[in-house]
Amino acid sequence: MPMPIRLSTLFLRTLREDPADAEVDSHKLLVRAGYIRRSAPGIFSWLPLGLMVKNRIEQIVREEMAAAGSQEVHFPALLPKEPYEATGRWEEYGDNIFRLKDRKEADYLLAPTHEEVFSLLVKDLYTSYKDLPLSIYQIQIKYRDEARPRAGLLRGREFVMKDAYSFDIDDAGLERSYQAQRDAYERIFKRLGLDYVIVKADAGAMGGSKSEEFLCPAEIGEDTFVRSSSGFAANVEAVRFEPSPEVDASDVPAAEVHDSPKTPTIQTLVDFSNKEHPRDGGWSAADTLKNVVLALVSPEGKRSLVIVGVPGDREVDQKRAEAWFSPNDVEQASEEDFANHKGLVKGYIGPTKGSKQFLGEKAESKIPYFVDPRVAKGSAWITGANENEKHVWNLTFGRDFDADGVADIAEVRAGDPAPDGSGPLELARGIEIGHVFQLGRKYAEALDLKVLDENGKLVTVTMGSYGVGVTRLVAVVAEQSHDDKGLIWPESIAPAQLHIIAAGKEESVFETAEQLASEAEELGLTVILDDRKASPGVKFADAELLGMPWVIVCGRGLEQGEVEMWQRATGERFAVKLESALAELTARRK
Amino acid sequence: MPMPIRLSTLFLRTLREDPADAEVDSHKLLVRAGYIRRSAPGIFSWLPLGLMVKNRIEQIVREEMAAAGSQEVHFPALLPKEPYEATGRWEEYGDNIFRLKDRKEADYLLAPTHEEVFSLLVKDLYTSYKDLPLSIYQIQIKYRDEARPRAGLLRGREFVMKDAYSFDIDDAGLERSYQAQRDAYERIFKRLGLDYVIVKADAGAMGGSKSEEFLCPAEIGEDTFVRSSSGFAANVEAVRFEPSPEVDASDVPAAEVHDSPKTPTIQTLVDFSNKEHPRDGGWSAADTLKNVVLALVSPEGKRSLVIVGVPGDREVDQKRAEAWFSPNDVEQASEEDFANHKGLVKGYIGPTKGSKQFLGEKAESKIPYFVDPRVAKGSAWITGANENEKHVWNLTFGRDFDADGVADIAEVRAGDPAPDGSGPLELARGIEIGHVFQLGRKYAEALDLKVLDENGKLVTVTMGSYGVGVTRLVAVVAEQSHDDKGLIWPESIAPAQLHIIAAGKEESVFETAEQLASEAEELGLTVILDDRKASPGVKFADAELLGMPWVIVCGRGLEQGEVEMWQRATGERFAVKLESALAELTARRK
Repeated sequence: MPMPIRLSTLFLRTLREDPADAEVDSHKLLVRAGYIRRSAPGIFSWLPLGLMVKNRIEQIVREEMAAAGSQEVHFPALLPKEPYEATGRWEEYGDNIFRLKDRKEADYLLAPTHEEVFSLLVKDLYTSYKDLPLSIYQIQIKYRDEARPRAGLLRGREFVMKDAYSFDIDDAGLERSYQAQRDAYERIFKRLGLDYVIVKADAGAMGGSKSEEFLCPAEIGEDTFVRSSSGFAANVEAVRFEPSPEVDASDVPAAEVHDSPKTPTIQTLVDFSNKEHPRDGGWSAADTLKNVVLALVSPEGKRSLVIVGVPGDREVDQKRAEAWFSPNDVEQASEEDFANHKGLVKGYIGPTKGSKQFLGEKAESKIPYFVDPRVAKGSAWITGANENEKHVWNLTFGRDFDADGVADIAEVRAGDPAPDGSGPLELARGIEIGHVFQLGRKYAEALDLKVLDENGKLVTVTMGSYGVGVTRLVAVVAEQSHDDKGLIWPESIAPAQLHIIAAGKEESVFETAEQLASEAEELGLTVILDDRKASPGVKFADAELLGMPWVIVCGRGLEQGEVEMWQRATGERFAVKLESALAELTARRK
Repeated sequence: MPMPIRLSTLFLRTLREDPADAEVDSHKLLVRAGYIRRSAPGIFSWLPLGLMVKNRIEQIVREEMAAAGSQEVHFPALLPKEPYEATGRWEEYGDNIFRLKDRKEADYLLAPTHEEVFSLLVKDLYTSYKDLPLSIYQIQIKYRDEARPRAGLLRGREFVMKDAYSFDIDDAGLERSYQAQRDAYERIFKRLGLDYVIVKADAGAMGGSKSEEFLCPAEIGEDTFVRSSSGFAANVEAVRFEPSPEVDASDVPAAEVHDSPKTPTIQTLVDFSNKEHPRDGGWSAADTLKNVVLALVSPEGKRSLVIVGVPGDREVDQKRAEAWFSPNDVEQASEEDFANHKGLVKGYIGPTKGSKQFLGEKAESKIPYFVDPRVAKGSAWITGANENEKHVWNLTFGRDFDADGVADIAEVRAGDPAPDGSGPLELARGIEIGHVFQLGRKYAEALDLKVLDENGKLVTVTMGSYGVGVTRLVAVVAEQSHDDKGLIWPESIAPAQLHIIAAGKEESVFETAEQLASEAEELGLTVILDDRKASPGVKFADAELLGMPWVIVCGRGLEQGEVEMWQRATGERFAVKLESALAELTARRK
């Protein structure tokens, strides 16, 4: 038998002030409304109302996973090092995971995701193509030792994820499994009433081949994505531009080295060029080739340099660089790096020295050299001459210099053409709420997950991995659905559908509210009943702060046989006869 | 819409052989039946069927907690050191907890229980006696770095507990909160069909005043408890015997020291006494006073000696000694300890030396000296004389020697009288499934949890803590309810109530089984459907191994319009007309 949630006894204390450490609205409101409390940086406790919202989201996820044919299992959070060592992730994660030793000095981690142990369990149980396809998932607590836990539940160190994994015998199967999860995600986010976009994502970090992210557009989001009006959408790390088509260089004058005193920056070089070597139309930053020296740090800690030539009017985007050179970390070259490479003249670096190629794995410097896709064959540049205070003009790609390949790591700008030709790109920020990955065979190979195929031959299984941030979703819904008075929960996950306020001191008001609550529950509604000894003002403010979709106020109107009904989302308020209040509510909820 | 659990696609593989590392039946069967798999020592993964059982137990716990007025919350498992340092438990737990540092070198632990953070949250939210009483609980993953994880889920390192905490303004309130949880536990364990006993427990370890344990009697249990036929029941650590009443010593001859060559043990001393100093009725081990030297190691690591005089026919019980001297660890005195106390003559230790008291805080040795409660005032003993190969006869307690107090740490034996006079004790072993504690004010004081009382005065809150081992319960039910063919789940927590087997190759058999499954689900039953392409023998064995309460076999009998129905618990099997099978089942389930 259901019972209303009584505010007189509910473990709840609302706050009138924003918590000092909260930056974003969802964090402020979830704390103020008594849904969560901080226990440590990035680590939260769930109070009764918060736990209800989280549980309702989990229930929606479970239903949609079942509909997608995925079976629920549950793995430990505390796991031994060995499987993660086998796939290289023990090292790759660096400081981002919590590591510990048990009393016997064995290494453990608090798992950030579970590809390895899911794979091992399938290997333990299954042996034949007949056992596949298989889709299994868990809703489980994950850990990540974030450098900067922030924004409340949006970037925590202990958080709940739904992580699903698919196992197939072939690529077509993986494609089907991937699509089933992707469809389930769309259903989940729609049931939560979320505004979201699906963007192409960088699959490299997980070693996979195809990947998409579900992002909720939000100013406070940590992901930047691009989209065109004709439907292209990608995480900024995942945008890949095609190399520009070759241009005719037959009219380009021969490359010439000139003194260029005091021109270590693009701006000084452009000014110098326009003054000392003027041409029709002048020179701009886009005519210069900036050669950026980066240090790549491998998961094993090995440091090596690469140089990337980008048009002088663009900066390198750190996240795109990390994605491109994954699994390496990418750092700016240090003074020490320059000291170790005597040939590099800071501020005057260029692909050639004299008439010979200087940058490149096989050239004098031995430093791998890549160019931005905008550096077309036949295009001519002003760039460094590898001598102090000297630059070279009209250095032409393909004629005067070459590169080891392309590196597409420059910043993307609003107005850049979409790679698929669907028009100019716009940039936006978003919060990642889901991620689907075609992992392929990387994990299965590392862990030797093979099954017998129809011909009795051992074949490596192909996998997908699919994550939804459950606790993050609580915050994302709060972020998308609130106003300055408080939270506004969609019915699908509200702690209760109806919030009844006894506004008055008379016993009869409380009796009416109680009666209404039990009638509402008989109709199948979940109910919060504010039966506290508090002023109507306090109760009204708390009702708006707590954010149930519907409020009924039993107050002075009762003398005329009326109650007041509020719809939290629209702000609409109207009087209704007590005896028809629930019928009216039922009609409006449809 | 419910769907049968289809064995053709269920992520399950049953094993015919017991796993090599399993010692107890529940562990063997839960692994063989594909409910759980080991991921690391004491750390398990839950496969679909196991997760269902665990979830059903959690649901029962939730329902009974709600009925007891307890509200659900959820705390992190990863917690900072500070609160546990404030109560002294960071040190007390020693090696038994998992500790780790985050990337900023801050200390964290994986919480074994949550008294501290529950207290802090209540302190954060509540300020007045009007807010109390409060009972809050969580169902959450706990960690303990057990020295010897064993017996599968019975003693794990990562496990699920329901832990509840009560907060009251006064002792009477605590008593009511305690009783409400205790009643809820009885309802939970009855719904699980468990045979259990409630025993008095040692409250010292948690610093509380009153405590009881719920134990399931089992040979493989790690807890020893005693009970009398008239209702006394206590964990062996918690049995406290009253000091024996004074006896008349007026006829006891004066104490006399004699040479006693080669009598370092009780047996050699008894033999020597009967030979060299015979008396009517002879001497037995019970006439000797054995002085056991123990080293107490405090939580801070400080080591100090105590000596306990116990009748020579009893050993010291290590667990009782640990409980008595809690929070100290108790070790046997080492050679080094003896070397540090030159006055102690191993094998010949006694309370006196010459005619003077030797043992005792204020006596020559300065070593605290306690006696067993059976050492009555006026009782006379043969005991060591603190000189090599010398003992003293007729040394009389209260006349010739004294003690600093009582230490009730000797073994309890079957037949010992119950402390409450309810008759002789019997000993048994059990598995702890629940524990209720009146903590009192220890934690509230350490963490400064106070509220204003009716007079506006700050008073310290009094607390209770109440634990149920959820994952352990899965194993305990399996342990109490199985046979040599497999598991036998009670209906309350079985993954499904009915297991339908399609036993045959004909399409019609499968169709009938499918039809029956959907009809059963329409009646509200949960169903496993064995629709695999496997032999009837394999299916029958798996049905018994998996352990659903009811099985219906659709097989050869179908030609006569019959199916076979099995009741797993009784082993009863009978034929029934297909069309009346579900009606028959419904009738029998009542």
